[in-house]
Amino acid sequence: MKIRELQRILDKNKLDFALFYNLGMETNPNMIYFSGYSGLGALIISKNKKSFLIVPEMEFEKAKNSMIKKVYSMDKKKFFESIYSIIKKNKIKSKKIGIDNNNFTLNSYKHFKKQFRGVKIKGISLDCLKLRQIKTEKEVQIIKKAFNYGNKILSKTIIDFKDFKTESEVAGFLEYESKKLGLGISFSPIVASGSNGSMPHYEPRNVKLKKGFCVIDFGIKYKGYNTDCTRTIYLGKINNKEKQIYNFLLDIQRNIIKNIKIDGNCGKIYGNCVKDLKNYSRYFIHGLGHGIGVEIHELPNLTLNSKDKIRENMVFTIEPGIYIPKRFGIRIEDTVLMRKKLDILTKVSKDLLII
Amino acid sequence: MKIRELQRILDKNKLDFALFYNLGMETNPNMIYFSGYSGLGALIISKNKKSFLIVPEMEFEKAKNSMIKKVYSMDKKKFFESIYSIIKKNKIKSKKIGIDNNNFTLNSYKHFKKQFRGVKIKGISLDCLKLRQIKTEKEVQIIKKAFNYGNKILSKTIIDFKDFKTESEVAGFLEYESKKLGLGISFSPIVASGSNGSMPHYEPRNVKLKKGFCVIDFGIKYKGYNTDCTRTIYLGKINNKEKQIYNFLLDIQRNIIKNIKIDGNCGKIYGNCVKDLKNYSRYFIHGLGHGIGVEIHELPNLTLNSKDKIRENMVFTIEPGIYIPKRFGIRIEDTVLMRKKLDILTKVSKDLLII
Repeated sequence: MKIRELQRILDKNKLDFALFYNLGMETNPNMIYFSGYSGLGALIISKNKKSFLIVPEMEFEKAKNSMIKKVYSMDKKKFFESIYSIIKKNKIKSKKIGIDNNNFTLNSYKHFKKQFRGVKIKGISLDCLKLRQIKTEKEVQIIKKAFNYGNKILSKTIIDFKDFKTESEVAGFLEYESKKLGLGISFSPIVASGSNGSMPHYEPRNVKLKKGFCVIDFGIKYKGYNTDCTRTIYLGKINNKEKQIYNFLLDIQRNIIKNIKIDGNCGKIYGNCVKDLKNYSRYFIHGLGHGIGVEIHELPNLTLNSKDKIRENMVFTIEPGIYIPKRFGIRIEDTVLMRKKLDILTKVSKDLLII
Repeated sequence: MKIRELQRILDKNKLDFALFYNLGMETNPNMIYFSGYSGLGALIISKNKKSFLIVPEMEFEKAKNSMIKKVYSMDKKKFFESIYSIIKKNKIKSKKIGIDNNNFTLNSYKHFKKQFRGVKIKGISLDCLKLRQIKTEKEVQIIKKAFNYGNKILSKTIIDFKDFKTESEVAGFLEYESKKLGLGISFSPIVASGSNGSMPHYEPRNVKLKKGFCVIDFGIKYKGYNTDCTRTIYLGKINNKEKQIYNFLLDIQRNIIKNIKIDGNCGKIYGNCVKDLKNYSRYFIHGLGHGIGVEIHELPNLTLNSKDKIRENMVFTIEPGIYIPKRFGIRIEDTVLMRKKLDILTKVSKDLLII
């Protein structure tokens, strides 16, 4: 996506090329975004020449199947030595280059400097995040398809919920249904029952589902793009106060979504949510939402004092929550796409389901 | 694990404390190793004071359940500002500190420097890797239990293999069986049938299993520790030449394992494998093995020219392979534990299974 826009940024900043790399088991989001390739290696995007990948021999065939058709095998033992030598072969200048400072470790920089002596660097991670926060039509189509999958799997899981005995069975089912369709997952699913629900990033365990609220936070990965949706259901006999608090949060969540407008200020949207939560605001212990794309957390940030603005073709979450330590948690999260009008991508029912 | 050994390293290098952090969705292996905590935040290990965690409010309850009982909530908007202020409160000197250079980005360093003005840093990632490569008795017990789980799941999958129609069904089943038991996975399982097998890091798709060799590479995560095992089975009617090549590789793999001795040189072990592979060595396109622990790839490296030595209580893989582009792949991978005598942890049969 948007290689030309990146080249314009390189040009504006007088950068000869942009370098993205991935040395570990995790993937580099910018590499996926600009090339579609998610393996080990490096991606070079030059200001005015053809982009190319440099990958270990074992990844060559996989890289050839990506959007970038020019692929080199690493020809030296050392990673940055290979990159340097192939850049020289391609007669690409390297006086000043753009690097992905959010995905560039101090250790890599040490090795990089040994090869690229005297070369100036400039961090371009924020520029890339800003490019990525506005989705192209092609991305919107992929993202919509991704949410179709994600919605179906989550709905199916919730409908069949009485079949599950443990938290990890639910999480396992969510992953299995995804995998069967050839999909990845955005993150390890969260299934937090009863008092476990008060930990927003709780990891499900092989324990019996507790009575009370159960928070299910789940997303799939399709063609590199993530989805994200949380629903809270209730297991067992609910009392009136519990019903009220769920519906109180649901009304707030719906109201926030209803009021989102293009050019809206994200810090203000967060602040309004805190106001709406009244006495419960001290139990709301995370941001209200985040952009989503090739990374699960991207721009914009819907957090305290954020200066980000809502723009057309942004995709982001709205996920207020109430967490009372050692008692319970409730979170209701939608992902929305900002068009002329706002489009809710997570189409799983939010009415409280009691099982 | 080994906090005291780390403190000795700090002392030797005149470092006031070690700082590990995790800002993203991925986990920091050293943070898990020293604290058992895998969420967002920072871990401070001082030379002579109590270790503590600094985490966002939403992770507080989870952090309290880790091995580190002293936990602070971040009290400032900015990550490194919070860390700086809590370190000052604890009256810990910060003239020179140890940082995890393999898990410290250039962007974080920029923010870090703003708070820790004039503070000297020293990378200690390699020291940590060296500590981690020799497993303690406690780790060995966890790792053995982890492999018990991993072996059972992989064996079950292979025995029931005829029930699967697609690559992603197999991968999904492996993940589901893990999750049901409350286990994580080491990496997204590889199920590469037919010609897909020639890509060592192939990602399984929702496609019918092809006839021929099928490479299955799978590991689970238990209490932070990873397992790793690859088996290659055959789907359909096999011919003699295919049988021969499988058994040729199996003999080599068994022979390598038989000859591993304490103090053995890892580069030499790799070199011997290449020699044994004769004409097929050009189709062996990755390292022979790697250490494994809280990370899937650790020290020692069994690769070309590696100077690493085999020591007692190391845990590492032996995984020769033959990959013929567009035709097939075979890989046979065991994980072994070096005791006085070598102990093979992956107890799934290696005899060629034809389905």
